[in-house]
Amino acid sequence: MSTHVFEQAIALTATGDGAYTGATSPAYANMIGPYGGITAATVLNGVMQHPALLGEPLSLTVNFCAAVADGTFELSAQPVRTNRSTQHWVMSLTQTDASGERQTVVTASAVTAARRDTWSVDDEPMPEVPAPQEVSPYTVPSPVEWIRRYEMRPVEGAIPDEWDGSGSGSLSRLWFRDAPARPLDMCGLAAQADVFFPRVWLRRATRVAAGTVSMTVYFHAGVAQLAECGHGWTLGQARAQAFRNGFFDQTALLWSESGHLLCSTHQVVYFKE
Amino acid sequence: MSTHVFEQAIALTATGDGAYTGATSPAYANMIGPYGGITAATVLNGVMQHPALLGEPLSLTVNFCAAVADGTFELSAQPVRTNRSTQHWVMSLTQTDASGERQTVVTASAVTAARRDTWSVDDEPMPEVPAPQEVSPYTVPSPVEWIRRYEMRPVEGAIPDEWDGSGSGSLSRLWFRDAPARPLDMCGLAAQADVFFPRVWLRRATRVAAGTVSMTVYFHAGVAQLAECGHGWTLGQARAQAFRNGFFDQTALLWSESGHLLCSTHQVVYFKE
Repeated sequence: MSTHVFEQAIALTATGDGAYTGATSPAYANMIGPYGGITAATVLNGVMQHPALLGEPLSLTVNFCAAVADGTFELSAQPVRTNRSTQHWVMSLTQTDASGERQTVVTASAVTAARRDTWSVDDEPMPEVPAPQEVSPYTVPSPVEWIRRYEMRPVEGAIPDEWDGSGSGSLSRLWFRDAPARPLDMCGLAAQADVFFPRVWLRRATRVAAGTVSMTVYFHAGVAQLAECGHGWTLGQARAQAFRNGFFDQTALLWSESGHLLCSTHQVVYFKE
Repeated sequence: MSTHVFEQAIALTATGDGAYTGATSPAYANMIGPYGGITAATVLNGVMQHPALLGEPLSLTVNFCAAVADGTFELSAQPVRTNRSTQHWVMSLTQTDASGERQTVVTASAVTAARRDTWSVDDEPMPEVPAPQEVSPYTVPSPVEWIRRYEMRPVEGAIPDEWDGSGSGSLSRLWFRDAPARPLDMCGLAAQADVFFPRVWLRRATRVAAGTVSMTVYFHAGVAQLAECGHGWTLGQARAQAFRNGFFDQTALLWSESGHLLCSTHQVVYFKE
């Protein structure tokens, strides 16, 4: 049995006291450094692997301080406060630069919680869209490797075919799933939360340099609910709310194929010009 | 000239190397501990007061690990990565408990940035609502002090008059401003981002224990744009997207009286039952 490329990419070696070592994976390479989603998943994996973990991920914030360099890194995941039913985590990813100095490339925080049965309701029902089997796959040749790690079927707001400055909206909806297929879990969902191409490309139909500065995921589904998703499709919806002075925000929702809201996720993104 | 009660509440004494001391203010007291917004503003103030600060706040995440006890606290705000135009901050607020141990009560992170002129557009225009002068003030007697620090004029989705379980939506819109009047600034906006009562109260028309676990603010307006707001009103809009297993999310937008989107802000909130 071979290990899924995602498992390889987020693999960590524990060196004690919440410290880990790992290495970037060429399978999830982006333009510069790895796909942000795989970095988010790796950082969360440091929490998931920690022997003191209480409960399941509830929220995750990842700040991208600098491009993660290809190669090895050190990760620290520390439980700084453990309550009866919630636990607060502080994480950081560091790399040693050419001059031998250790640099912080990612800071992050998470809350994990022992979740319980309560009154529940989804106020964001899944939009009415064609089933994934009825939607054509995204086939544009990609210049970056990580795109090939997701099978994508854009329903609305696909990446522009022509970069002619004609954009008018920032809403995208697409079906997607890990490629090759992989059962959905918390780290997999954290990675999927970053799957959307930069909203500024769609809004302007103009390709400019862009990169996530900070992202947050609020997990509505827990381990058991994700296990029910199996190899199913995820429906993602993302849009921007404001573009201003070199940054824009993105607000997004991810639903399971059966229509359960899995997470809400937000980010602020740098763009050039 | 007397100091505004907000300035007193977020005041810090620098003790060197990004360390500060401060104390909670009874003027912003909530049920247990201070209003979350004043804590967020205080933590951001540690960044604003730091001599190494580069640029202006772009994003802020505050994790509420435990109720802040009334009294003194220590705040640490450290710039962990300084780039050409962005700077990454890690903050924490600690208090000494009855047994003499120092406990983490808040963790936080922020990104500050030197912002520049670029193509800009707001994709979330201010909803059409009556002017603040045409809306009746919120006059329900409040059991907590911090509510009196904001003049509130609910347009839609006010706090229920009757707790009869009849709720059907989670959308609130209201005009509000600091009371007494205070020119809007970055810390003031961070505090305003937490002004909404728990969405679960509205959605269920049922009052249950609830408290913010983690909140994030993406600042679209900078120092200069906030200065233009002066003593003007803010329009806030908040809604939930999912309530599940003891937690719900809230997504919110704040506009200036003249219709500029000032920030988008999100939180995940604990609720009982």
